[in-house]
Amino acid sequence: MKRYEQFADDIAELIRSGVLAPGQRVPSVRYASQTYGISPSTVFQAYYLLERRGLIRAKPRSGYFVNVHTPTPFAEPVVSSHGAESMQVDVSELVFSVLDSIKDPHTVPFGSAFPCPMLFPLQRLARSMATACREMDPRLVVTDLSPGNPQLRRQIALRYMVGGLMLPMEELLITNGALEALNLCLQAVTEPGDLVAIEAPAFYACLQVLERLKLKAVEVPVHPRDGIDLEVLADTLERHPIKAVWCMTSFQNPIGATLPEARKKALVELLRSHQVPLIEDDVYAELYFGLHAPKPAKAFDTEGLVMHCGSFSKSLAPGYRIGWVAAGRYAQKVERLKLMTSLCASMPAQAAIADYLQHGGYDRHLRKLRDALEEQQNAMLAAIARYFPAQTRVSKPTGGYFLWLELPEQMDSLKLFEMALAQGISIAPGPIFSPTQRFRNCIRLNYGSPWDAASEKAMETLGKIIKSF
Amino acid sequence: MKRYEQFADDIAELIRSGVLAPGQRVPSVRYASQTYGISPSTVFQAYYLLERRGLIRAKPRSGYFVNVHTPTPFAEPVVSSHGAESMQVDVSELVFSVLDSIKDPHTVPFGSAFPCPMLFPLQRLARSMATACREMDPRLVVTDLSPGNPQLRRQIALRYMVGGLMLPMEELLITNGALEALNLCLQAVTEPGDLVAIEAPAFYACLQVLERLKLKAVEVPVHPRDGIDLEVLADTLERHPIKAVWCMTSFQNPIGATLPEARKKALVELLRSHQVPLIEDDVYAELYFGLHAPKPAKAFDTEGLVMHCGSFSKSLAPGYRIGWVAAGRYAQKVERLKLMTSLCASMPAQAAIADYLQHGGYDRHLRKLRDALEEQQNAMLAAIARYFPAQTRVSKPTGGYFLWLELPEQMDSLKLFEMALAQGISIAPGPIFSPTQRFRNCIRLNYGSPWDAASEKAMETLGKIIKSF
Repeated sequence: MKRYEQFADDIAELIRSGVLAPGQRVPSVRYASQTYGISPSTVFQAYYLLERRGLIRAKPRSGYFVNVHTPTPFAEPVVSSHGAESMQVDVSELVFSVLDSIKDPHTVPFGSAFPCPMLFPLQRLARSMATACREMDPRLVVTDLSPGNPQLRRQIALRYMVGGLMLPMEELLITNGALEALNLCLQAVTEPGDLVAIEAPAFYACLQVLERLKLKAVEVPVHPRDGIDLEVLADTLERHPIKAVWCMTSFQNPIGATLPEARKKALVELLRSHQVPLIEDDVYAELYFGLHAPKPAKAFDTEGLVMHCGSFSKSLAPGYRIGWVAAGRYAQKVERLKLMTSLCASMPAQAAIADYLQHGGYDRHLRKLRDALEEQQNAMLAAIARYFPAQTRVSKPTGGYFLWLELPEQMDSLKLFEMALAQGISIAPGPIFSPTQRFRNCIRLNYGSPWDAASEKAMETLGKIIKSF
Repeated sequence: MKRYEQFADDIAELIRSGVLAPGQRVPSVRYASQTYGISPSTVFQAYYLLERRGLIRAKPRSGYFVNVHTPTPFAEPVVSSHGAESMQVDVSELVFSVLDSIKDPHTVPFGSAFPCPMLFPLQRLARSMATACREMDPRLVVTDLSPGNPQLRRQIALRYMVGGLMLPMEELLITNGALEALNLCLQAVTEPGDLVAIEAPAFYACLQVLERLKLKAVEVPVHPRDGIDLEVLADTLERHPIKAVWCMTSFQNPIGATLPEARKKALVELLRSHQVPLIEDDVYAELYFGLHAPKPAKAFDTEGLVMHCGSFSKSLAPGYRIGWVAAGRYAQKVERLKLMTSLCASMPAQAAIADYLQHGGYDRHLRKLRDALEEQQNAMLAAIARYFPAQTRVSKPTGGYFLWLELPEQMDSLKLFEMALAQGISIAPGPIFSPTQRFRNCIRLNYGSPWDAASEKAMETLGKIIKSF
């Protein structure tokens, strides 16, 4: 990390923690330069960066000030009401039409599930791939099946360790993306017909996995900032024979919530007392905006009940399809299911990522990616402020690349989806995030692409359509 | 193909079709040279090749003769008796211990499911991978999900076309190896608890998939040369509510049988009359020893009832984990299951194989691979003749890389497995190929590795252990 980035992060942390309050002046360039022992130009670079991120702004001839409002004047979405009944799941048709809508490269990809691939170091990865393939021992292809490439698993274990989580390498299994990991975890602990507690709203792929495995969903509401409602979950666990809880504990898709550490700890404790496994979907873990990665619930697990699923698809190499799971006491069972399902993950992709993690500068890339995402979030929030109705409610996640919008009551997001698509704009309508197809007046917007005139124009168009309802 | 290879193939075909009978003299070098308009050295090269393949042999001062016996003096295995009851499947423990046994690079891999990776053009593939990654459009990683890389699917469709099978590209789905394809197919047409007709003996991964999907197996015997017993299958379809038939129609693993074309046609017709889908596992399709690839059953399908599964894992790139399925009328359903299970196959691997198929010389590689496998089969058959008891029965497949051995009645192949492993030799014991753990006196041997002194020694050791029973 460069000196100015470090300094910018220090200031950003002061803002986030409230030490520097909204409207307050940040240290002058001269003062900061003297106090922190850095050159004025370093301070300037840091302040430019913070300005781009939307955290401070310059007032002519007076210096820099903490932004009075985060750029959105909007309230956050309300917590969904609790639907206690278990449901058969069937949202696929809807999801497939949304997935199809983003395949056209001319469509503005606000409905996409991925960040823009241009944000990834694909050329550097290609070099790692070339090296890895050249050096790969041919015999590995028969001896090196699941659990997967040992170098890659070692690198992943090291990253856990830096985050304060000691994980035996034996627990780690490489999978075809996190989606396969989640499938395998759920299958390891359920039988068809079983009940699984999920979030409301939930990532639609979760609903599809339940559908595929013929499981029933019990929805538990998610608070837009603090994550899954632990009281409702406790009640659900009392009243239903829940076999597993599926939860995105950080930067939840679609709502963006992150459980604070204390609540993660409480979640693990609650599940421990019921001896119910937690399937922790943590694919956005690396995309935090603050100084430190939020800890996963897995960090508080003492009994191997948490199956922690990660992926490189959102942070490094979308098309490589490399994910993993640290499945605790279920590790062997999950590994065997993997062997029966697809034997092992593609070996060149595993070896390439292992090489990249060692030599490619992953942390440097991640810092750039996080900065870009935070900047793009600010741009999208500002556009919402400009073009959307005042009653709009918006989440303001501290990581990831999704905004969750609650539009005025009369809004029908499925109609909006169609009307926007006719204008070359994709969005993700609320009902695909619920087995009961609730959230009809909600949408998820992806700010994972560099902001440009087309993005701005698309937001203006969206705003017009919404106001026409 | 070089001229001498072509000429050798012509002679080989004359031998296989019986035009040149065992013991008969093949055309003299001078005669062949004049008749076919090729140089004597080309004829010599061809005859050396045929000698290496075990089809002819030189008699000093008299020329070359068709081998009187195929190198084995053994009878073929008997057809297993018919177990009509449906079974819960549970062979995994046994299979996992066999899989583990081949991970040690010092073990002689007669129990392996793969051919030796040294037989594959991994360096040439690495070049294709480097090219593909350099040239890959980053946007593809979000627009180019399942059904998969269009260039790769076009190349696969072209290979089908050359084999006389017109397949719309839309029917083709790229998967994480054929194993995933087979999983998805089976899931597309069954519910937990359903009955599926499988072969006896069957590839153990088939049993594992059934186990994973909680399906019940009805075994249908396989003739060592002609494949699945169609009369028993017809009877089974009459008497049980079979939801799918899983069948390896060419070079069946483990027994090596290939259904002749007429029987493939009859199989498709039988299933058509019952409207039961055929899951055709055809992963060894490219490993034929004759002049022409055997047609798949899919070639006779007029109603889209055949789901044809293929793979590059046995013929080109084991660790890449790229397979495919042409799923007929179930194509869309299978594609959606794929999207829900693992989204798509690893993109660099898909692009690399697409590039290799276009520029890498796949057919040249395959010819070399087939020659090597045929040569190795002969070497192993000869070793069996030298070291194994006379009552041994052996299959003589016309492709692939497995021999199926029926040992004397009192033989216990599970004990043999342990005793051989203690001597550093892995084998695949018969019971892992049946949900009822039959075939206790049978073993499958892999001749997919170049034959060397260690192979010879290992066969001698195996023979001794077997005779000690």
